[in-house]
Amino acid sequence: MRARIPFDATTPKRRLGSVLSASERADFAIAMLRDVLQAMAPTELEPTVIATEEPEATVSAPIRVDDRPLDAVVEDAIEERTPVAVVMADLPLIEPESLARLQATAGDVVLAPGRGGGTNAMLVRTDSFSVDYHGASIRDHRRIAGERALEVGEIDSFRLGTDVDEPADLIEVLLHGGPHSVAWLREAGFRIETTAGRPTVTRVPPEST
Amino acid sequence: MRARIPFDATTPKRRLGSVLSASERADFAIAMLRDVLQAMAPTELEPTVIATEEPEATVSAPIRVDDRPLDAVVEDAIEERTPVAVVMADLPLIEPESLARLQATAGDVVLAPGRGGGTNAMLVRTDSFSVDYHGASIRDHRRIAGERALEVGEIDSFRLGTDVDEPADLIEVLLHGGPHSVAWLREAGFRIETTAGRPTVTRVPPEST
Repeated sequence: MRARIPFDATTPKRRLGSVLSASERADFAIAMLRDVLQAMAPTELEPTVIATEEPEATVSAPIRVDDRPLDAVVEDAIEERTPVAVVMADLPLIEPESLARLQATAGDVVLAPGRGGGTNAMLVRTDSFSVDYHGASIRDHRRIAGERALEVGEIDSFRLGTDVDEPADLIEVLLHGGPHSVAWLREAGFRIETTAGRPTVTRVPPEST
Repeated sequence: MRARIPFDATTPKRRLGSVLSASERADFAIAMLRDVLQAMAPTELEPTVIATEEPEATVSAPIRVDDRPLDAVVEDAIEERTPVAVVMADLPLIEPESLARLQATAGDVVLAPGRGGGTNAMLVRTDSFSVDYHGASIRDHRRIAGERALEVGEIDSFRLGTDVDEPADLIEVLLHGGPHSVAWLREAGFRIETTAGRPTVTRVPPEST
């Protein structure tokens, strides 16, 4: 089955700007993408990365450059052929089992809700569905499917639900993430700190690591 | 199977203090507890709420008052008899299916990771396990099980992983929560706002609802 992974290679992970430089954000975004691709490797999903521009690093999947908005890119993927899986690139907690569960879930459309109202992954089995990633997209996707009398499946997954946007999300990566993202963060000096009770993530300066 | 639901009836949900008064926090905590109990109703779990003091409202399960720290309360539950499920009271996204998956997962101990390093639910099948809810508890629980050569199962669930602590968590309740919690929030004037792009939750003053 085809899988499409939209990837912002232009200004990736801006909301991590308080803890990572622009070049670090680009590197970390690639590390997360590599974890997504690694989770797909043992599955029957055949990934293509749809990048807003050519990334500086190579990855283990074909890259197609398309700088149009996310909705247009995904609409095209659905019109091109179904079934198709659309999986975000910032899901470093993803595992082959998460994807197997996505594929095993019944429905004309299978949605994986993300934190904050997003839709982090979907499997579209009919071209009569269409997408709207703006705002609370999970609600809009439920509504669009309902209006078109499509059966909606939802997958209840912490791993698919955890996209990494903000510094507070980094603890999820350090605790549960894939090898590329965890190694990148540790190399950059990020550690879990529990002295204050509630665990947080701190960055150890390189000279003291 | 026995289930224990620890419940802070004394100072519940302090971190919601910027959006809810103390009495509202107490009411909302009860609404979330009711959603947890409702999700258990069709399962074979037999819940007892372990409350730090007698709550002001009644719920559909027996309440035992025990004001000791969480670790001591859960240790006692494990020593009393296994298997036992320990499910937090602030998981309003929980569904009967989430609990069925918890029970269907193999392992001497089955852990449901929560956001920020917590352990939101667990199923303990052997009394040689013990708990440590301080700090990044999911990591400590993995370690404790490892030290005792216990098999650990983990359940990948957005619904079990989403505990409600902070104002930013309320959007998850409005989008995916159980009936008691959603009704309480809506009655209190909370709405999802998407005008600024990324969805947020705002509170509409009562006079204009």
